[in-house]
Amino acid sequence: MKIGTVTGVVWSSRKAPSLMGQTFLVVQTPEGQIVAADQVGAGRGDQVLLVTGTAATRFCMEAPVDAAVVAILDQGEK
Amino acid sequence: MKIGTVTGVVWSSRKAPSLMGQTFLVVQTPEGQIVAADQVGAGRGDQVLLVTGTAATRFCMEAPVDAAVVAILDQGEK
Amino acid sequence: MKIGTVTGVVWSSRKAPSLMGQTFLVVQTPEGQIVAADQVGAGRGDQVLLVTGTAATRFCMEAPVDAAVVAILDQGEK
Amino acid sequence: MKIGTVTGVVWSSRKAPSLMGQTFLVVQTPEGQIVAADQVGAGRGDQVLLVTGTAATRFCMEAPVDAAVVAILDQGEK
Amino acid sequence: MKIGTVTGVVWSSRKAPSLMGQTFLVVQTPEGQIVAADQVGAGRGDQVLLVTGTAATRFCMEAPVDAAVVAILDQGEK
Repeated sequence: MKIGTVTGVVWSSRKAPSLMGQTFLVVQTPEGQIVAADQVGAGRGDQVLLVTGTAATRFCMEAPVDAAVVAILDQGEK
Repeated sequence: MKIGTVTGVVWSSRKAPSLMGQTFLVVQTPEGQIVAADQVGAGRGDQVLLVTGTAATRFCMEAPVDAAVVAILDQGEK
Repeated sequence: MKIGTVTGVVWSSRKAPSLMGQTFLVVQTPEGQIVAADQVGAGRGDQVLLVTGTAATRFCMEAPVDAAVVAILDQGEK
Repeated sequence: MKIGTVTGVVWSSRKAPSLMGQTFLVVQTPEGQIVAADQVGAGRGDQVLLVTGTAATRFCMEAPVDAAVVAILDQGEK
Repeated sequence: MKIGTVTGVVWSSRKAPSLMGQTFLVVQTPEGQIVAADQVGAGRGDQVLLVTGTAATRFCMEAPVDAAVVAILDQGEK
């Protein structure tokens, strides 16, 4: 998993039907920007935990995503 | 997922049969160039969302690709 | 697999239910920081072996993680 | 997928039995060198399309490879 | 696949039970160090071929590894 900070939301009117109903957050990590399906109600500025790869689909009722925001880190955490 | 910009199309007369019927777009991302199967009718200059890895095959009727263009971002989006 | 050093623990009160009961360690590797589910009782300062990707879920009773700490290296090891 | 240029062939007399019968090409990509199973009869100097990850096995009759050369790009292509 | 050179062996007295019986080699590649399960009897200084990701488990009787040494390159090979 990776630690990152939510910096925004992706808006798209033209997308594949299997992505409908997902909120996609832009997350800045030390290795670059990742767009991930939100599973915990995260918002701008939150420090979050990201799962990437095949495991991410299991948080999203098998929606075909490759990254998911799966936890909001407690403040004061390293 | 990753955000990138479509910069071209890949043409190939000699390819594996399981790739027939797919349009492959060249997409520039901050981490480098990716070639992805188009699922949304994207064109040159469009800012798009890319899914990579195993999840990509699920957008392409199980064609064995490792990247797919799955959304066109709305203009003005971050 | 990758070799890294445990530098801390991730704490989160708001996380996806499927992650409950896992301890997540912050591990520093030459390529950057990875958060991984602990399977061997590792602690700060331990040099450990990390498995990433789909294989990691198999160490965690199929919990949807993408990295696991699966061994503590013996001291004096290269 | 990635675009690369074939620079050579890998020869090995001692290899895992499940790799027998595959030709492995060395392909230079902007992100580094990849060795991939040839599926299209590519040769030195050809500009090719590479599939990596789990999808690659599907081009190779399920041989356990992690990269395959799946198309030769037409000359003059971007 | 990737080409690398074996530089050592990983020793661990405390590891997940599913890794028992595997020999883990440290392999230096141009992109960094990888630890991989040996499937061909490679030793220090050998130039080898590495498979990474899900395909690696198939060389190791489904042991949950993410990298395997699957061939020793012939000397004089590029």
